[in-house]
Amino acid sequence: MTDLLSPTGLSSTGLSTAGSSSAGAGPDDGGGADAVDVAALGELLLGKWANVRREARLLAGRPEVHKVEGQTHTEHRQRAFGQLQFLVEHNAVHRAFPRRLGGSDDHGGNVAGFQELVTADPSLQIKAGVQWGLFGSAVMHLGSAEHQDKWLPGIMSLAVPGCFAMTEIGHGSDVASIATTATFDPSKDEFILDTPFRAAWKEYIGNAAVDGLAAVVFAQLVTKGVNHGVHAFYVELRDPVTREFLPGVGGEDDGVKGGLNGIDNGRLHFDSVRLPRTNLLNRYGDVDSAGTYSSPIASPGRRFFTMLGTLVQGRVSLDGAAVAASKVALKIAIQYASERRQFQASSDTEEEVLLDYQRHQRRLLPRLATTYAASFAHEQLLEKFDDVFSGTRNTEADRQDLETLAAALKSLSTWHALDTLQECREACGGAGFMVENRFTSLRSDLDVYATFEGDNTVLLQLVAKRLLADYAKEFQNVDFGVLARFAFGQAADLTLNKSGLRQVAQFVADTGSVQKSVLALRDEDGQRALLSERVQSMVAEVGGSLKAAARLPQAQAAALFNEHQHELIETAQAHAELLQWEAFTEALHGIDDAGTKKVLTWLRDLFGLTLIEKHLSWYLMNGRLSMQRGRTVGGYINRLLAKLRPHAVDLVDAFGYGPEHLRATIASGIEKERQDEAAAYYRKQRASSDGPVDEKVLLLKQKAANRRGSRSMPS
Amino acid sequence: MTDLLSPTGLSSTGLSTAGSSSAGAGPDDGGGADAVDVAALGELLLGKWANVRREARLLAGRPEVHKVEGQTHTEHRQRAFGQLQFLVEHNAVHRAFPRRLGGSDDHGGNVAGFQELVTADPSLQIKAGVQWGLFGSAVMHLGSAEHQDKWLPGIMSLAVPGCFAMTEIGHGSDVASIATTATFDPSKDEFILDTPFRAAWKEYIGNAAVDGLAAVVFAQLVTKGVNHGVHAFYVELRDPVTREFLPGVGGEDDGVKGGLNGIDNGRLHFDSVRLPRTNLLNRYGDVDSAGTYSSPIASPGRRFFTMLGTLVQGRVSLDGAAVAASKVALKIAIQYASERRQFQASSDTEEEVLLDYQRHQRRLLPRLATTYAASFAHEQLLEKFDDVFSGTRNTEADRQDLETLAAALKSLSTWHALDTLQECREACGGAGFMVENRFTSLRSDLDVYATFEGDNTVLLQLVAKRLLADYAKEFQNVDFGVLARFAFGQAADLTLNKSGLRQVAQFVADTGSVQKSVLALRDEDGQRALLSERVQSMVAEVGGSLKAAARLPQAQAAALFNEHQHELIETAQAHAELLQWEAFTEALHGIDDAGTKKVLTWLRDLFGLTLIEKHLSWYLMNGRLSMQRGRTVGGYINRLLAKLRPHAVDLVDAFGYGPEHLRATIASGIEKERQDEAAAYYRKQRASSDGPVDEKVLLLKQKAANRRGSRSMPS
Repeated sequence: MTDLLSPTGLSSTGLSTAGSSSAGAGPDDGGGADAVDVAALGELLLGKWANVRREARLLAGRPEVHKVEGQTHTEHRQRAFGQLQFLVEHNAVHRAFPRRLGGSDDHGGNVAGFQELVTADPSLQIKAGVQWGLFGSAVMHLGSAEHQDKWLPGIMSLAVPGCFAMTEIGHGSDVASIATTATFDPSKDEFILDTPFRAAWKEYIGNAAVDGLAAVVFAQLVTKGVNHGVHAFYVELRDPVTREFLPGVGGEDDGVKGGLNGIDNGRLHFDSVRLPRTNLLNRYGDVDSAGTYSSPIASPGRRFFTMLGTLVQGRVSLDGAAVAASKVALKIAIQYASERRQFQASSDTEEEVLLDYQRHQRRLLPRLATTYAASFAHEQLLEKFDDVFSGTRNTEADRQDLETLAAALKSLSTWHALDTLQECREACGGAGFMVENRFTSLRSDLDVYATFEGDNTVLLQLVAKRLLADYAKEFQNVDFGVLARFAFGQAADLTLNKSGLRQVAQFVADTGSVQKSVLALRDEDGQRALLSERVQSMVAEVGGSLKAAARLPQAQAAALFNEHQHELIETAQAHAELLQWEAFTEALHGIDDAGTKKVLTWLRDLFGLTLIEKHLSWYLMNGRLSMQRGRTVGGYINRLLAKLRPHAVDLVDAFGYGPEHLRATIASGIEKERQDEAAAYYRKQRASSDGPVDEKVLLLKQKAANRRGSRSMPS
Repeated sequence: MTDLLSPTGLSSTGLSTAGSSSAGAGPDDGGGADAVDVAALGELLLGKWANVRREARLLAGRPEVHKVEGQTHTEHRQRAFGQLQFLVEHNAVHRAFPRRLGGSDDHGGNVAGFQELVTADPSLQIKAGVQWGLFGSAVMHLGSAEHQDKWLPGIMSLAVPGCFAMTEIGHGSDVASIATTATFDPSKDEFILDTPFRAAWKEYIGNAAVDGLAAVVFAQLVTKGVNHGVHAFYVELRDPVTREFLPGVGGEDDGVKGGLNGIDNGRLHFDSVRLPRTNLLNRYGDVDSAGTYSSPIASPGRRFFTMLGTLVQGRVSLDGAAVAASKVALKIAIQYASERRQFQASSDTEEEVLLDYQRHQRRLLPRLATTYAASFAHEQLLEKFDDVFSGTRNTEADRQDLETLAAALKSLSTWHALDTLQECREACGGAGFMVENRFTSLRSDLDVYATFEGDNTVLLQLVAKRLLADYAKEFQNVDFGVLARFAFGQAADLTLNKSGLRQVAQFVADTGSVQKSVLALRDEDGQRALLSERVQSMVAEVGGSLKAAARLPQAQAAALFNEHQHELIETAQAHAELLQWEAFTEALHGIDDAGTKKVLTWLRDLFGLTLIEKHLSWYLMNGRLSMQRGRTVGGYINRLLAKLRPHAVDLVDAFGYGPEHLRATIASGIEKERQDEAAAYYRKQRASSDGPVDEKVLLLKQKAANRRGSRSMPS
């Protein structure tokens, strides 16, 4: 059911067959121990919040939280709601909340634990994210201490399931343009919440179709005839007893989705719904009883982006969850590929294991390398997130770095997860299509990760904007229409050289330092030079093209921008890839065990070379690689694949997921059992010599006999 | 919910807004009518079997055959079975069967009609394919006239739902290695069907879990102690009344799959099941009552591939269905992108339509171009299929060409459909994830098209084998392990220069004819030269590397092959892309209307340039394009996108699918309705001037007032 042609020459390349441990050095490695220390590598991958992850994995291994395949969306929703209760009972979801309310003010740990739930059921992960990561977080971060005391206990205990009602059908990514209004009525000291037309209905809102009793609703705050922009309001939606919508509130069920059907997404609309004035979550903007607006942040744009800043948590979480799903997929596919045999090299030998086929290695191992890179990059992101949210390092610049890093990494890792899940599914043939082997189910659920909590294409444009601002002052204040709208308030006060973005600053200051001639593709410095020089050049090139925009009228500037939109996104992607490569390389420096370091270095090289191969035309067109060197890239990758092949199973074992997380029949060893049984059958048949003779063999014998016959004729 | 940055400069590029008809020429086109004649183009796309397609689409538009989303797999299976009855009642599925039994011996028309069912429900399409295209076809093509008379009526009427039991869990693509045996017992004039071990269970068999009363089972035919290889047997599985398995037959339900859950796939195994000798479908191999085997085809390998030859029909069908699904997806996404507005260029203008964003064009229009290419290529394949199956042109060479062409095109089009469905889903943001908008549902169902009826990766290796055989005689008889096993019997008697493959022969005879210096990228001849030269060089290069294999022992030859497996597959893919490009170009020559021809030529150029951009590193590394010319490719593509943009809606309208086929809320015009309502609301608000003032506007006014105030101060 899978690909393949013919086997690797085991004898000529020194490859050992797959096993859970392997130590055979390739012939060109100069010998030495290059075995992976699986346990130590596993610990490294668990990162700073290893204990939280272990706890969360223990929980995620419990059958109570596992997805049941084949349920209707109604059944799945009920199950997911029950699982949320289970999480509450097991203290799994309160880490980020204030200590005084029973939480532990642990932001990094909270996200680390939350991510690990993806192996149980992505619906559970995201529904928990809606309840505590969005709804609860909004009350915590946008509300006052009184708001927290009043509403967080119910949210934390799930007594009040709620929604984060921001997106409208008419405006997805463009939150600033939402049309729901909250108009202050001083005569009653109330806000009046209104949905003025159909395009302003809240849409795709988790918990809205069934479970949500309340919501944080984002609306344009209007008082004294002035619109102060988007603010958040705590709104009760349903009667807790009858579960009917309260007067003025209405909605619809989004029904069946492409995945995540354990979540009851739906639509909401409001018709003159009256809210006490104090239901405004007033940390960044308040209205007094006279209707006078005040805010600690004078600039409406910056205020908007500060309020939206808490959304970054969702992106960090999705980044980690996407990495976890990629790990699960690769463990299943590589385990299977190390057992599954298909096509015989010759009639008398055993069939080849899939993973010995070059194409199969090409399909799985570069994705394994990327998963390692994404995993190490995620750990850096999570630490930065924790620094900012814990207040350890929380300057404006830190927050901007975090935003940019999250946008860059979330885009790459969510796309990577979809790509990896699909390649693994195809690499396992028909078995990959069976839901019991996880790929299709995870892929369907993770599909939307590419466009929610920030559409990847929009997020990459945000990254591009930042790169341009770092590149040249012109871009710090210019208004490029959309980009300005999206990144408004981030442009001012830009300081360079943040950890996540240091390369950009570095190489802008440092042009021409790359000594092309002496750097080999396989060297760390060579890879770094090629990858970072590409980002630098692309930024400079698109920056040069766009400089004129600063002096053009807005419409023309926007048109100029549009002509370079594709380039901008490619540039942002190149930058994000560099960040992943840097994270992988930094992680290497923290490895002590020589064998592990050697193998991981090959894997990092594979990642680097795969990036260079992917963008090879750029390197060639721009004179960064000669035709001759360009032609060596593919061969070098193939040699790395052969070197890594014996370690592939170790590398996925280090992810640390057990059968309770994998839950895939084909990763259970059943394939090898079946083969052993078949091999024993044929062995017995050959031994007893009562098995049938093959017609082809018979024909060959007859031909030989005929030849002998004709030779014995007198000549 | 979707991407984007800023608008195209409408004024500077002459783009009109989208509409169902458009005639504005771009500034560099020299004017002239370049409107698309949608009706005529639609007719061209319908091809030779236009009437059958129209009939089938009429049927596919009926609510009775539409997929109901959100059903359990049990409900979906029942519905799909009922729909098969509906097809029988409407005479939709008997075109290929013999006239004497009520069919019309129309093979091309049969496949054309069958494909169109994919818009109703892919489960219906594939379940119909199992019943009539595989089970029925096997009886028709592998059985005698008596077999046909005896079994086809029940199969055609669906009185006997059945299975095509070929694949085993232990051997997917490697059919020759299946382990089920049918051993002849002359004492009772019966075959004894046996599953010797677990790996030999039949797996992923449609209709096996519930509906199948009978099956065509593939097994190793053993008589008089000789194994004559894989043959097909008609086997009764279940009691038609109790629906219980008959004695000796057993099985399991495959349960929920990643898609196609209207089909009851399952497993089957046999324990000494006795079959009358005459249940052997004996067209290519028979056993007499004494147990003596005979066959019209002496070579066991060729016999095997002749029997498997009927499988090509499945590949042709999937190719067409994949193209149809891509068309539906693009119609929905492009319709929506022509209405959906997101982000304002400036505060006073209307927001931009998605399709005016360069990146959005980059995402959708190259896929539109590829879909046209795949559609025209499919039409050629279907005609060749009809020629062979109708007997019009049915030499050994014709059959080999058909096999190769089907393998090449099915691989590309099924992957293209998945890629297109995913890009369309993401390009529609959250709306794209809602099942009601079709993308996710179609994508899940079509996922398995990439690995069933021939795994794409294996099929491409079959194509590579053929290319090598055409390239040099050495490859005609050499045994490369797997490849030989897979393509055994096809290697001998190879004649060059078949229509589907003419390029290969042509350029092998014709090396060096390309005048690189004079050919422009945008010229047909330039594109052809670049694309065909690449195939030629890749074949020659990999051929050169592998020539040594002919003189090596089998295991070493296999190892050498493995080292070049990736290259081989890339070569096959390059060839398949060339075939698509040629088909598109040939279709252009058949267009009379000047405007249509002009626009379609742009679209073909976009397809060609997209291929060249995709493989740009190859062209640069191999000196086929200079750095300077390489750098022009991206810009030229961007200009083509801008030219094609005004015609995009016409180009998807020409596919001819109505609302009854699309059934996507976002393609219904609802988006525009909502926007018009919102725009009217804001217009009214501005006119009455009782709307709130924006805080930002207020601040700007205050600043201006302050400046005026300070200027009026005495200096």
